[in-house]
Amino acid sequence: MLTAEARKTSDTNSPVERLHTLVAGDMVKADALIHTRMTSAVPLIPELARHLIDSGGKRLRPLLTLAGARMAGYEGDGHVKLAAAVEFIHTATLLHDDVVDSSILRRGRDAANVVWGNKPSVLVGDFLFSRAFQLMVEAGSLEVLGILSNASAIIAEGEVLQLKSANNLGTTEEHYLNVVSAKTAALFAAAAEAGMALAAPSRTATRAMHEYGQNLGIAFQFVDDALDYSGRQALMGKAVGDDFREAKVTLPVILAYARAADRETRAFWGRVIETGVQAESDLARAIALVQETGAIAETLHRAQGYADAACKALSPLPPSEIKETLVTVAEFCVERAY
Amino acid sequence: MLTAEARKTSDTNSPVERLHTLVAGDMVKADALIHTRMTSAVPLIPELARHLIDSGGKRLRPLLTLAGARMAGYEGDGHVKLAAAVEFIHTATLLHDDVVDSSILRRGRDAANVVWGNKPSVLVGDFLFSRAFQLMVEAGSLEVLGILSNASAIIAEGEVLQLKSANNLGTTEEHYLNVVSAKTAALFAAAAEAGMALAAPSRTATRAMHEYGQNLGIAFQFVDDALDYSGRQALMGKAVGDDFREAKVTLPVILAYARAADRETRAFWGRVIETGVQAESDLARAIALVQETGAIAETLHRAQGYADAACKALSPLPPSEIKETLVTVAEFCVERAY
Repeated sequence: MLTAEARKTSDTNSPVERLHTLVAGDMVKADALIHTRMTSAVPLIPELARHLIDSGGKRLRPLLTLAGARMAGYEGDGHVKLAAAVEFIHTATLLHDDVVDSSILRRGRDAANVVWGNKPSVLVGDFLFSRAFQLMVEAGSLEVLGILSNASAIIAEGEVLQLKSANNLGTTEEHYLNVVSAKTAALFAAAAEAGMALAAPSRTATRAMHEYGQNLGIAFQFVDDALDYSGRQALMGKAVGDDFREAKVTLPVILAYARAADRETRAFWGRVIETGVQAESDLARAIALVQETGAIAETLHRAQGYADAACKALSPLPPSEIKETLVTVAEFCVERAY
Repeated sequence: MLTAEARKTSDTNSPVERLHTLVAGDMVKADALIHTRMTSAVPLIPELARHLIDSGGKRLRPLLTLAGARMAGYEGDGHVKLAAAVEFIHTATLLHDDVVDSSILRRGRDAANVVWGNKPSVLVGDFLFSRAFQLMVEAGSLEVLGILSNASAIIAEGEVLQLKSANNLGTTEEHYLNVVSAKTAALFAAAAEAGMALAAPSRTATRAMHEYGQNLGIAFQFVDDALDYSGRQALMGKAVGDDFREAKVTLPVILAYARAADRETRAFWGRVIETGVQAESDLARAIALVQETGAIAETLHRAQGYADAACKALSPLPPSEIKETLVTVAEFCVERAY
């Protein structure tokens, strides 16, 4: 399988890989289920879905679901269904995201909207979203269905909220945090909570996983937004400057703009972000500005705060190898940026 | 409320209106819930949703849900939640439909994608779809969640399937029926079945409502597709030729093309549908062709077959005023075309 291949070539000693190893049997089942359930009598659906699902994503969200279920000592097979459902929800949001952002690339490949056009991307997203709910129904827990349907509504709200910050240098740090909390962190939180909730443990335990996922999700997105302006990103084989080219107002830009030294620099940001008119050399200048003003350092510093909060959130849970690994995943989430 | 206004000015003696009257109390509650639950802290969401939800739709699908629950003697308030959920699913599919079809008008108003653009239409559709699942969770029946999540997946498959028939005169009658069964009839069937399933009656009863909805949905879509080429449509204040302008290959076109008298007529269809190049006078010629060839009469004849099947499907259910009205709704569904 492509994803397994992709994972093999990545850093096998990373905490995420260790987590994969700890739930390896479950993840093999979840991967198999993902591939079985993305099929349809309409061939375009699996064709398009496979393009994204087999493109080397880390399966971080389903991993949290499986980890939660294992920590709770869950014995059934519902967590595998939930893990597949969580990956489908994530894939559906990526498909719709790329249509909304008119993205060109996704995980280093042509985005689905580029290959097949916007129409199939919207509709296959809808299909995967529906499949996710079918799988959740099969998992048989109304509580979990509540957790994930709430998260889905919050994600959509976050995406709509984000539209307001596009090309808008007036975007506040608070607005950015609201967007990140909704569009990214809500699914991390729900994925982590849902796995544990299946085993119906204490409210304290599900709350702990929710808080862990929520804070991890924010840290993860902050770091991603910082890496988009970092040479480190290029080393990891990812494109640099995607957000910049789409004129997205992320925290590095908000901070660098607020710290702009002079009118000329503010005019630069105004041109490249608000009017979206960009020349070849603009990305290099933007990278220099976010670095020089300390905007990247500050973004990563704040990410560290959320990563710490994620680790702390797990404290009510009994010690276990999975718990210790989740702590290192949160730590690594920020470390990877340095 | 706009919808109530719109209904008041329509034919108050129609069977659909009689059905509204029979579940009036429930529908008032469902309408209120629809308006409460489409709100969000993100103002664009209710603004865009209201545009479509208050545009005078007949609430036919939630009506089937309420009717089903009443026939089953259901006593709780879950059916009201389901009715709102069904309307949200329908609204979400319309929003995505209009993006996919680049539609200009919807229910006589500018389509949401025209007013706000494609991005918010996609994302608010996602939001309403999520809200629908939240409401279903609140209704508390896993069986019903299964019915409606299955239908949602089938609807998305139908929409993807339909992409293949766009501008394609090679579209078979079978393909068209598959599209209609999935994209339209599946939600009618699920809406009707879900209301009854809440009260957990016999499998025979839920099956009867499913079959009724499925056949009614097909009849309804066939008639709609015929009316798009009919002067009767203009009398009802609806636009004629929407499908034609979007070069959709519906049954009237499939039949008229198959019955084209000569090469010149086939070339006409090729130009207006396959290349999509249309002149002002082309709609009038297309209308004349679908009428002369008997394509409209044949489409309505087949619709009648499905309407009859819908009525027959109800026979296992005990007599009731609602049941009798559902029969007249199915009959009226085709009668309105004459």
